[in-house]
Amino acid sequence: MIGVAYEGEGLLRTTPVTAEPPGPGELQVAVAYCGLCGTDLHIAHGNMDARVKTPLVFGHEASGTVAAVGPGVEGWAVGDPLTVMPLLWDGTCAACLAGHQHICQNLTFVGIDSPGALQQRWNVPASIAVPLPADLSLRTAALVEPVAVAVHDVRRSELQVGDRAVVLGGGPIGVLIACVARHAGARVLVAEVDPGRRGLASALGFDVVDPATDDVPEFVEGWTGGTGADVVFEVSGAAAAARSTTALAKVRGTIVVVAIHAAAREIDLQRVFWRELRLLGARVYQRSDFERAIELLHGGVIPADELITGVVPLDGTPGAMADLSAGRAMKILVDVAGA
Amino acid sequence: MIGVAYEGEGLLRTTPVTAEPPGPGELQVAVAYCGLCGTDLHIAHGNMDARVKTPLVFGHEASGTVAAVGPGVEGWAVGDPLTVMPLLWDGTCAACLAGHQHICQNLTFVGIDSPGALQQRWNVPASIAVPLPADLSLRTAALVEPVAVAVHDVRRSELQVGDRAVVLGGGPIGVLIACVARHAGARVLVAEVDPGRRGLASALGFDVVDPATDDVPEFVEGWTGGTGADVVFEVSGAAAAARSTTALAKVRGTIVVVAIHAAAREIDLQRVFWRELRLLGARVYQRSDFERAIELLHGGVIPADELITGVVPLDGTPGAMADLSAGRAMKILVDVAGA
Ligand SMILES: [Zn+2]
Ligand SMILES: [Zn+2]
Repeated sequence: MIGVAYEGEGLLRTTPVTAEPPGPGELQVAVAYCGLCGTDLHIAHGNMDARVKTPLVFGHEASGTVAAVGPGVEGWAVGDPLTVMPLLWDGTCAACLAGHQHICQNLTFVGIDSPGALQQRWNVPASIAVPLPADLSLRTAALVEPVAVAVHDVRRSELQVGDRAVVLGGGPIGVLIACVARHAGARVLVAEVDPGRRGLASALGFDVVDPATDDVPEFVEGWTGGTGADVVFEVSGAAAAARSTTALAKVRGTIVVVAIHAAAREIDLQRVFWRELRLLGARVYQRSDFERAIELLHGGVIPADELITGVVPLDGTPGAMADLSAGRAMKILVDVAGA
Repeated sequence: MIGVAYEGEGLLRTTPVTAEPPGPGELQVAVAYCGLCGTDLHIAHGNMDARVKTPLVFGHEASGTVAAVGPGVEGWAVGDPLTVMPLLWDGTCAACLAGHQHICQNLTFVGIDSPGALQQRWNVPASIAVPLPADLSLRTAALVEPVAVAVHDVRRSELQVGDRAVVLGGGPIGVLIACVARHAGARVLVAEVDPGRRGLASALGFDVVDPATDDVPEFVEGWTGGTGADVVFEVSGAAAAARSTTALAKVRGTIVVVAIHAAAREIDLQRVFWRELRLLGARVYQRSDFERAIELLHGGVIPADELITGVVPLDGTPGAMADLSAGRAMKILVDVAGA
């Protein structure tokens, strides 16, 4: 058995892993595919060295089957297809007690704070395993986690059928938000500077605008007949995009902060006040978002094949990370089983 | 008949006014009292010269009685006590059509964009007159407008009984928000640098903290047992206060932007994301807020006598404005009838 570990100082290594039997309450997962995302890049680039304990087998966008069932686990059998919602909460903090376990004040993110899915045998608490339909391909199912992010973001926005939504940033999460928002009945505009990503968004049927050459607020004013957007999703992480959000939203419109912003951003609070805007943070997902994401992938709502740029073996992970860093790919899966 | 007009270039003048008969659909108001507020200061200081047409009789926190009833007006009789909700909307813009008339994209604010209450006879559309209980003193009723602001802000926050609310800024609106929030069942902390204002908030039974000497986030952490505040009202307009809001709110907590912020402010969007915070703008009020404000004043919930620092005649308006500018007063009323 092998896996991929981050060993610190920007070093990734393919490494032998020992398949431990699952403990009480655990499932042993035979990982099929694991998607790579921006958080994995941050880990690999050493940006999260203060948080991660090395060597760390990372990866948290997994699909697979049950390889072994630990003591006391009911409802699962060897061979059952599954994905994993990679969140473990303490159940005791104020956030948990208020029902917001997914943003527990002491959250453990599996694949960052504990071992992740880039290994051929992976033990996880059965409580965070989520069953998959038998006829959903495990390749497609590796998208459940990012789709769940998009479902959570759209749900949090309270977007309504007929709304006009602007997505700032056309990377994987931006395009998934666009897909989910369209499925919820919105017309969607994707603002993206990269021509390749903008082309993909356009090919998927979304309206597009290039913030490098177009004045986005002016464009959105025209696109909405002068009203402004019902919902704006800030997925780019860019200071200028964050600054623009308040100019894009209609009176009583909603802005959802999805991206990581490394520094404080200038926000036009006068416009927030004047238009009675609503700015919301949206982070990860709840169990219902995961289940809804599975339904959307199962129903063909998400163009999985267009979004999966490539599939690499385990030892192709470093190269895939380089491609992602350079913006040469949308979503790359690691074929963990086939390695 | 006399009034007070802003004549441009920072000049206020007591001026004769002619009592015109009310037009169709109008009431002629015999103004009793008119409160002065921060917006009036902005006008008098010339900060709003680009917006106002001079000479402007300003003032929009009025109480009075009906002096004459215009053609076609029903339900009003001479002598009826009233206040005026100083908003006129176009009824046709996207905000109006969506039911948000109070933040109409083409809102006329009476007393800024059209003649206000600092005159002994004032004609207003009957549609924006709001009846007062016969046994509510007209002096107290001059507070209805700012109390309606506070009601709107608290209602918009969706504050719940038992919540912990932090009010940043202990001026008139801040203290009124504190009063309304407490009446809604919250425990309230007022952060205010001015010792006099802080002393008043304390005397009214609120917890207080001095941002000049105390670390407010640390204080709020202790005050909430480590959880953070359910609701934060930003009423100060200060950059540092705006910046601090995200550090004060609990997971899924609410921040309400009440103050005018002259420039874009640095906001910690990472914290907004991490804690799934909600930041809302709240501007003016709706009719229901006005009616609720009257009930609260009628019920003795608002400590009107403690908040009204002084009452001056019409020609005392310039001096009162100077006192307000210098922070020597909370709320000053102009006794328009007695001038
Ligand atoms: Zn917790
Ligand atoms: Zn309107």
